[in-house]
Amino acid sequence: MEPRVTLITLGVADLARAVAFYRDVVGWEPASVVEDDVAFFDLDGFILALWRERSLAADVGAPRAERGSFEAVALAYNARSHDEVDTIFASLGERGARIVKPPADTDWGGYSGYFVDPDGHHWEVAWNPFWPIREDGRIDYPKD
Amino acid sequence: MEPRVTLITLGVADLARAVAFYRDVVGWEPASVVEDDVAFFDLDGFILALWRERSLAADVGAPRAERGSFEAVALAYNARSHDEVDTIFASLGERGARIVKPPADTDWGGYSGYFVDPDGHHWEVAWNPFWPIREDGRIDYPKD
Repeated sequence: MEPRVTLITLGVADLARAVAFYRDVVGWEPASVVEDDVAFFDLDGFILALWRERSLAADVGAPRAERGSFEAVALAYNARSHDEVDTIFASLGERGARIVKPPADTDWGGYSGYFVDPDGHHWEVAWNPFWPIREDGRIDYPKD
Repeated sequence: MEPRVTLITLGVADLARAVAFYRDVVGWEPASVVEDDVAFFDLDGFILALWRERSLAADVGAPRAERGSFEAVALAYNARSHDEVDTIFASLGERGARIVKPPADTDWGGYSGYFVDPDGHHWEVAWNPFWPIREDGRIDYPKD
């Protein structure tokens, strides 16, 4: 894994309320809001995602979606290719990382899995064919 | 606030174990490890910090340091100056943000405070005189 983090996802109970906070209080304009489920802020190729807590809990494989049952945060490393995700998980597995979700095709057309660090912090390693990786390792977020 | 995140702090129960994981399993070399308390990974100006969970809990003002009593993650925005921190908190306050720790001088020579978003995610806004901000908004992490 190259030394970079490309995305942080914050679980939110109410997406509209969370988007309003980041837009009106913090002052950042969302790059896109997908239905009532997820919002992305493009911070010059570093992505801040707000995702419904239940969806995030389900995605990371948390047993229950209740508040307090899991840390509603995930860090992500966006790989440059489908194959790179496999290479990374193979290496993580060899080195003893706890892989909580082996990489698999996702319903949004990507390929993604999760591992956790020794303290239970979740890391996603994903390939998103719609988000090319720039030369500098950040995301070339699609413009509308 | 400019659209950027400069640092993520992950709370860890055992710093040596966590540093060993990120170094030996993930493959990233720490830029510095300060006593048995905190480690910093310089990801091209984006900083990943591992901090003893009890210290992080105390810093964000969590009532108890026990696992599960708070989300052991904090995001941070590093300001360009001491004054910018004040300007940001004044603006956040006017716009109704919940400021859980008003900015104050820190024991490491900086100036820092915390606000939380509507879901309780902690954001630190800090000025660190030893970490200048690069033109691109990332941290010019000091070389040894």
